[in-house]
Amino acid sequence: MSKGVTPKTENYSKWYTDVITKAKLADYGPVKGTMVIRPYGYQLWENLKDSLDYEFKQTGHTNAYFPLFIPKSFLAKEAEHVEGFAKECAIVTHSRLKNNKDKTGLIPDPDSKLEEEIIVRPTSETVIWSMYKKWINSYRDLPILINQWANVVRWEMRTRLFLRTSEFLWQEGHTAHSNAEEAEEETLKILDIYRDVVENVLAIPVLYGKKTEAEKFAGAETTYCIEAMMGDKRALQAGTSHNLGQNFAKAFDVKFQDVDNTEKFVYATSWGVSTRLIGALIMVHGDDKGLRLPPNIAPIQIIIVPIYKTEDELEKIKEFLTPTFNFCNDNQIRYQVDERSKISPGYKFNEWEMKGVPIRVEVGIRDLENGNLTIVRRDSSEKIIDKVEKLTEKLDEILQSIQDSLFNQALEFQQQNTKKVSSYSEFKSQITSGAFIDCGWDGSSETESKIKSDTNATIRCIPMDQNINNLKCIYTEKPAKYQVIFAKAY
Amino acid sequence: MSKGVTPKTENYSKWYTDVITKAKLADYGPVKGTMVIRPYGYQLWENLKDSLDYEFKQTGHTNAYFPLFIPKSFLAKEAEHVEGFAKECAIVTHSRLKNNKDKTGLIPDPDSKLEEEIIVRPTSETVIWSMYKKWINSYRDLPILINQWANVVRWEMRTRLFLRTSEFLWQEGHTAHSNAEEAEEETLKILDIYRDVVENVLAIPVLYGKKTEAEKFAGAETTYCIEAMMGDKRALQAGTSHNLGQNFAKAFDVKFQDVDNTEKFVYATSWGVSTRLIGALIMVHGDDKGLRLPPNIAPIQIIIVPIYKTEDELEKIKEFLTPTFNFCNDNQIRYQVDERSKISPGYKFNEWEMKGVPIRVEVGIRDLENGNLTIVRRDSSEKIIDKVEKLTEKLDEILQSIQDSLFNQALEFQQQNTKKVSSYSEFKSQITSGAFIDCGWDGSSETESKIKSDTNATIRCIPMDQNINNLKCIYTEKPAKYQVIFAKAY
Repeated sequence: MSKGVTPKTENYSKWYTDVITKAKLADYGPVKGTMVIRPYGYQLWENLKDSLDYEFKQTGHTNAYFPLFIPKSFLAKEAEHVEGFAKECAIVTHSRLKNNKDKTGLIPDPDSKLEEEIIVRPTSETVIWSMYKKWINSYRDLPILINQWANVVRWEMRTRLFLRTSEFLWQEGHTAHSNAEEAEEETLKILDIYRDVVENVLAIPVLYGKKTEAEKFAGAETTYCIEAMMGDKRALQAGTSHNLGQNFAKAFDVKFQDVDNTEKFVYATSWGVSTRLIGALIMVHGDDKGLRLPPNIAPIQIIIVPIYKTEDELEKIKEFLTPTFNFCNDNQIRYQVDERSKISPGYKFNEWEMKGVPIRVEVGIRDLENGNLTIVRRDSSEKIIDKVEKLTEKLDEILQSIQDSLFNQALEFQQQNTKKVSSYSEFKSQITSGAFIDCGWDGSSETESKIKSDTNATIRCIPMDQNINNLKCIYTEKPAKYQVIFAKAY
Repeated sequence: MSKGVTPKTENYSKWYTDVITKAKLADYGPVKGTMVIRPYGYQLWENLKDSLDYEFKQTGHTNAYFPLFIPKSFLAKEAEHVEGFAKECAIVTHSRLKNNKDKTGLIPDPDSKLEEEIIVRPTSETVIWSMYKKWINSYRDLPILINQWANVVRWEMRTRLFLRTSEFLWQEGHTAHSNAEEAEEETLKILDIYRDVVENVLAIPVLYGKKTEAEKFAGAETTYCIEAMMGDKRALQAGTSHNLGQNFAKAFDVKFQDVDNTEKFVYATSWGVSTRLIGALIMVHGDDKGLRLPPNIAPIQIIIVPIYKTEDELEKIKEFLTPTFNFCNDNQIRYQVDERSKISPGYKFNEWEMKGVPIRVEVGIRDLENGNLTIVRRDSSEKIIDKVEKLTEKLDEILQSIQDSLFNQALEFQQQNTKKVSSYSEFKSQITSGAFIDCGWDGSSETESKIKSDTNATIRCIPMDQNINNLKCIYTEKPAKYQVIFAKAY
């Protein structure tokens, strides 16, 4: 904590890593590409998980657990079926270690070579649909509304903590339905949950809409997404919800007997968000002093720093704070008292700022005489001094105000940096300096790929609300088929 | 659900698997040795997890997440250090699939062969201690009280659902301390949490004590355990808490600067329980009609089966039940109404009995006239009929009574089948017919291993409360060093 972080404006990417390291959110694991989520970072994930899990259960979903290991043949099945199949994965080939003959170490025992290689799941569609085939016979078995909290692996060599790691944590929902309408309804219901939780818990404003054919999940008929603007004006895909149609049911031959006694293929959806959202949280709200956490996700909402020299003084301060403690307990406010001795208040202030705690309460002996409480808001650095009873009663309002203000700052930033452009040259210059571009697109994948190879920008989404009146394609100048958002993305 | 389960007395092992399958707790995954935990089974795990997690957090622990992948060299380090190193594990050797030349399928790309093989964690001590080395410098960094909820892999070919699968879910705590006393205190504190949760939530009575040198975790100085008696009178290790002393700190060179400015090795503990406990839950309480779930773990505590012919009748029944619904809501009782049409009440009764729901409420149109409620206890099959207001108010008491009665039945069974024996021949005959044997042991590993090779019985634990007055070793007849519990185990 002795040194600050690299300023955002100097090197955004280094700033990001510095904040993660210094706030002790995560660390690099010993195997290249892996990440350790440290307790403070994991608490963020737990809080997010609880919010999402609650919403999933409220809407009739249940959790289950499917195996980590997938037979290679299953991926081959998907590969036939799906063009954009990702081949970078962890492959298990042996099941036993033995001592090397020269006793220099352990080697995979050649006798334990597997008949068929096993893949560590990059996602669970295939293994889940192999089970659904066993479980689904009749319309009475539908819908199946299952979610799974799990680790998945996709080989990555260029690690970025929370954003790109070989193994990451996520939830993946996999539902099965008897008709297309219900599957579409489910896909949109989940998109709504994602938007709600990301905006109201993480205080990250999102755009939402459909992906283009080029950007959608390879096995999906339609991919819906939420997209957020990071502090460097690049886009981050914050969650996706796929309507898979009958694609997986056909690949795994999953049929059901419908009410009308005919056999039909099942309709499917899948949807997921991951620990990547913690990366977004850091990038959207952090500043040069470290994290700034929205109260709804903060593991500690209020940090209380008593400024004292003797144990006796500490006791007096704690007594003085009794109404504050009571208020926090009564209102389920997560607070902590930093009583560590031999550490200066200044050092503590910096540390808790780095960790992004929304409110800091400072109390010294002099405050006892005046009956005053001093608080500092992490979002604005605003200092508020008032009588202890009066200020204590406002703590929950102030937390709400911090939650709102962080959301509004991020929304304003997103809006200010979303540009409508009138020419392709303007498009290019805006993309280069960093922005979301709101413009027309003729709907052809040719145009999309030309813009991408020119500028590295992709269509992040086709927003739900469309207005293409008089809108022209920014590249071909043909009448626009869609209003879209272009940006460079993580 | 059409056919019953194999009777317990006919084939215990088949009974066990039948119950799991028919109650839809779990299923076999496509890769040999893997398990799918279905929603109803996963809810049991979630409830157990919540109870344990609450206790861990109350005692100052936090959760974190460490990588699935461990460098092979780490296990080699442990292997040097630890005799009893398990070599059966999943070994990752490649990181990419490619199409076979003849396009017949996917093969591991030879170019993606890893320089060093990666092991899928069988347990996380090594990866965690490699991180603790980075994080621990001074006494100020201690204690570290971290727990992890994770999947681990140990190669198993003879699958038994929940009891023995290649991959299973567990929690593993890994703590670091500045002195031996604190580590011992931690080890015992956790043992106490395990005992508390297993007895009070799962209603499974346990014996608790130390493991012998032969039975302890290879890296530990002392292993404490809780042991439970299953329905076939065999023992199941339900949880272990290890005092690791300085063993891992030495293997990973983890030292800290103490208050007195000297460098010392860190003291460690580790402890875990797994989805195996769900297996124990089934075996301890289940009967020939299926599961019997203690209310504290039951996903559904009360199932309400309305007996009706028309929608109108259903509405009347639900109206009649309003006070019951209100009572359940007010008292946080988990209930569900089984409104499925075209399924007979009898079929529903069987199904919910199979799923072990503690209380079934039956209401037909005639009950409305009488103002009566009929309930059936799953633990005793007792039927209780009384006025709706009167019986409703007793629902929470009855749930508590079921919780207690299941515990007491299991305790009585354990006590009745724990035998004190006076000769080795009696020991052998009791072990053969199934029992826990409470007897003296001379403390020598030779005796222990002779008894094991003779009878297959192992020392399950050296109970905390010892009484060796006049006690002789059951095998050598020398004066007993310990009073121990022998049994055959899962």
